[in-house]
This record gives sequence, structure tokens and C-alpha cells, in this order.
Amino acid sequence: MIEAGYVIGADIGGGSARVAAVGPDGVIARKIKVASNPEQGYKPLVANVRAAMDKIMAAQKAPPLAMCVACAGAVDFSRNMIASSPNFPGWRDVPLAEDLGRGRPFAVSLENDANAAAYGEGWIGAATGWEDFAMLTLGTGVGGGIVLGGAVYHGFNGMAGEIGHLPFSAADILCGCGRRGCLETTASASGVARRAVETLATKGGQALRRVSRGQSGRVDAKMVAELARKGDAECRRIMRETGMELGQALGALTLSMGLTRFVIGGGMAGAFDLLKAPMRKGALARAYTLDARSLKISVAKLGDDAGLLGAARVALDKV
Amino acid sequence: MIEAGYVIGADIGGGSARVAAVGPDGVIARKIKVASNPEQGYKPLVANVRAAMDKIMAAQKAPPLAMCVACAGAVDFSRNMIASSPNFPGWRDVPLAEDLGRGRPFAVSLENDANAAAYGEGWIGAATGWEDFAMLTLGTGVGGGIVLGGAVYHGFNGMAGEIGHLPFSAADILCGCGRRGCLETTASASGVARRAVETLATKGGQALRRVSRGQSGRVDAKMVAELARKGDAECRRIMRETGMELGQALGALTLSMGLTRFVIGGGMAGAFDLLKAPMRKGALARAYTLDARSLKISVAKLGDDAGLLGAARVALDKV
Repeated sequence: MIEAGYVIGADIGGGSARVAAVGPDGVIARKIKVASNPEQGYKPLVANVRAAMDKIMAAQKAPPLAMCVACAGAVDFSRNMIASSPNFPGWRDVPLAEDLGRGRPFAVSLENDANAAAYGEGWIGAATGWEDFAMLTLGTGVGGGIVLGGAVYHGFNGMAGEIGHLPFSAADILCGCGRRGCLETTASASGVARRAVETLATKGGQALRRVSRGQSGRVDAKMVAELARKGDAECRRIMRETGMELGQALGALTLSMGLTRFVIGGGMAGAFDLLKAPMRKGALARAYTLDARSLKISVAKLGDDAGLLGAARVALDKV
Repeated sequence: MIEAGYVIGADIGGGSARVAAVGPDGVIARKIKVASNPEQGYKPLVANVRAAMDKIMAAQKAPPLAMCVACAGAVDFSRNMIASSPNFPGWRDVPLAEDLGRGRPFAVSLENDANAAAYGEGWIGAATGWEDFAMLTLGTGVGGGIVLGGAVYHGFNGMAGEIGHLPFSAADILCGCGRRGCLETTASASGVARRAVETLATKGGQALRRVSRGQSGRVDAKMVAELARKGDAECRRIMRETGMELGQALGALTLSMGLTRFVIGGGMAGAFDLLKAPMRKGALARAYTLDARSLKISVAKLGDDAGLLGAARVALDKV
């Protein structure tokens, strides 16, 4: 690894893509945000990211040592392609790495965004010093990334860590994956909002009703968390049930994979203060091989930069 | 590895212990079965196994290159001890390896019995050529062993592969681990017998009632499997539900660990013909990352020798 050099880490989300120059120490020298509208099509996205790459190279006065792009979906590592992506429904075997790197003097690799976030947190975030852990990213869904022996764990099929689809939801709701009972149907930010809507449909949830009226009837996970902090019983119940479900999934990871350390990230990690205790309870209730002393659940530290930084670290590993 | 040499593989069960001389090719040159009655105490067990070891050495006219002992329970690999064992409730941090190897000119190591069985099947059994798979041993409980990258996977806590305690039982039965809903409460040989007893308690299960009357009211998994093969609807339902639950657990391993290949062993593997189709159905129904082509479920080949042979292979690895 050349100390003077830098790498480009990128994170392509459904709303925006972020592209950054990152030093070997994990410091972001420059970060550019570009649009990544799924309806806009593949070519404009590639052009936007390439323009950001060129801006970074011009400002850094040198090409990067390497680049890695984090993206939601199934990465085909053997062919360096995005096999499919929930954010970009039209993508099938998309040669994103090749298209971004064309004519540029450095290699471009790919990584799943949840894996990259976990790897980033392990590098310079909440999991520093942890060699074996899983990260759950609580947002629209529940993303999962697993680090084993200090390396991203892809599994035999390249698709390990699909924690959001473990069947730990007590509700029987159809998931985007076509199955029922997936964790992410109720234990994501969307899931919490859904529970809130259900509560409003009953005679309960007075406080929630008042607050949502002020927001033109809208309810979201943040609202639920705030009311829970103020002591509202219904909202406290929603956060507790959400935490318990997440904890049961963590316990299953202890039973199957022997993991005892976890990082919670994503938008709903802002409610970590409310989720932590029920998560611990749920995990310990599920796994007889887990004890309170070895169970460690930490909140993510890198925020929206986790995927970006994890991607940068993947690029550094390849230099 | 010295071609002329041999290792000792041992498998200590709750009823008997088996000790064998095994060549580098996996051929068992000599096998001795001794009593291992849990009520008999630790010292007589150690003496019995040591006597078997000495007999083998005398017959082989040379000491083994190394020895490994497979045993149910939690192995503390850092201290080479059995931390605890379900078969021997009194054991706490038992220095079994040290006690067996005392005064003998070779090293003794330990392995969990389900892990050893998986490793054995991977070496010269049903999973030859598979680098990544899980094995489920269906007996009194559901044992689990995981092989990743061709090596036994112990996990960060040393206790990975506790598949029998994943919550995939539809029934709410208290498990030996103190939790409810564990897979092994219903999807083991004991679980199938339990389902049969439940069926007898209803007005259904006429065929089962007739057969069990001939066995002084006793029912077991083998009886259920035989009646299912003869077309009895109740017994077919029991085997189908059992297979579906096992399959759901396999699907969860695909989601979390990226595994797509599985071996089914243990006493109830004799009903593999009945379990295979519902297992496949259950796994595919659970995991969106799994497809029929990559899913492989094979029946174990090594029978009762799997643990013994896996232990021998662990010993060979250390030579």
C-alpha cells in the first residue's frame, strides 16, 4: 500500500450515489454526491459517477490506486457484475465495474452495500478490533453484512448475510422477496411505520394520532421513537417488539454462525437507545450458546459513509 | 503425513464409545467399542477408552501419529477441554484430551461430535468434494456441523452449527436448552415419535395404533416412516411436516451463511426418501437466494462411523 496514494470508494443508493477519495487511514479527502434515480436509466448513472470520478482525480492531481463500488443487490464476484439489485429493478448482469473503469488507469471492483457498510464499521467504526461480527442496517429493509476473520464473508453462493429475510417477524406480511414473515417486514423503519399505522387503526395510539395529524396523517419510525422516549405506552410497545424481533435474529446468528458481536446501523439506528435492551433480551432468549457477557451490540459510527468507507477499504485491500 | 502411519479416531456417545485405528486413506484398520455409561462416572470411561487405545497400539505394533476424540457438547478449544456435554451432565471443564493422552507418546485433540461427523462426510462420505456445507444429524436431537472452505467451522464462540436450536418448530414445546420452538423438539427422531403420540391421542392414526399395539404401545420414528411408505395419510403428514421444518432451517442457513449444500445423517436419515422432497420444498420456500439447481441435499454415507472418521481426519490434519 502506497502511503501517498488514495482510493475511490463509491456507494450507489436508490436516490443518490456518493463517490469519495479516501486515504489509507480512512480519511475522506473529497466527497461528491450525484443523482442516481432508478427511473433515469443505467447510462446516465454511469455518466454521473464517471464525471464525479474525473472531478476527484483532477482535484487529487493523480489517479486513485483502485476503486470499489458498493451497491445494493446480488454481486456476481466471479464476473465482477451486479446480477440484480432491488434499487434498480431492470438490472440483470450489469457490468458496472467495467463500465465505470473503462479508459481509466485503475481497477474497479464491486461489493454489496450492506457488506461494505459492515467492513467499513470494522475498519474505522463501531466494530474496530472485532474480527467476527454481523451488521444490521435498519432502513426501508433490514440489510445484513457479515465479517469473519476480519474479511467480508460472501458465502458459497455469494449471498450470505441476508438477515432481513430470516423469518423472525411475528406478523404474516408478504415481503418484497415473495416470502412471508421476513424480519424486515416489521423490524425495519418501514416496519415500525407499518406497526404505527396498525395502532392508529385500533382505538389506541392517541399520542401518535395527535402527532401524525400535525404531519398530514403521515407516520414514520422517527415519530414512534420520539413518542416512545416521551413515555407513550403504545410507541414503547412498538419499539420493544421491534427490538425483540431483531434480537431473535441475532440469537439465530449466534446459534448458526457462532457470532456474539453485532453492529446496528441505518436510519433507525437513531433509535438504538430504545432498541438495545429488547434486542439483547431477544438474543439471549433465543440462543442458549449466548451469555450476557459475550453479547455485544453497538451502534454504528460511520452513518451514511459506512458503505463508502467499506468500499474504499475493499479497494485498498486489492492494492 | 506419513503414509505408513495411522491415527486414532474416537467417538464418545452417551451409550458407548468407539475407538479406531484409521489410515491416511480413511480405512478403519481396527475398531473397538467400549461402554460409556454416563452414570458410571468419568474415571471408568477414561480407563475404558485408554484400554482400547492400548489394545489398538499393541495390534498396530506402533503408536498412532495423533488422536482426536469426538464428543457431544461444548469444546473449549483454547484449553483442549470439554466445557460441558449433554450426554454427561456432570462434566464441567473436563480435561478429557489430557487424561486420555497422559503417558502416551502422541497428542490428543478434541472435536464436537456433530462437527466431526460433518468433517468425516466431507472427507470420504456424502460431501466429498464439497468445501462448504452443513450436516444435520437427526437422532434424539438435531445435531449440526458446518464445514467452510474445507475446514470445520467453529465460529467466534466455538459453538457454531447449533442448527437444532433454530426456532423452526411450529409447536411450542420446551426444549432441553430451556427455550421453546427449537427445531429438534419436533424435527428429530424423538420429535417424530412425539408427533405420532399426539396423533394417537386424537381419533386419527388408525394404522399407527394397530402397529404400536403390537409393540406394547410404543411408537417411534421408524414405525412412522414405514407406515408412511405404505401410504398411511397420517404418517405421511408427519414426515412431510418434519421435512418442511428441516427445510426451513436449511433455507435460513442459505440466507445467513450462503450455504446451498447439505448432508442429512443420524438414525432418521433412514427416512431420507420421505424427507427429501419436503425438505427441498421448505428450503426453497424460505430462501429467495436459493434455487432448485444449486440446492443439494444428500444422505450421509458413513453411518455411525462419521464422527469417528471425522475425528481421525482432524488428527491427520495435525500431523
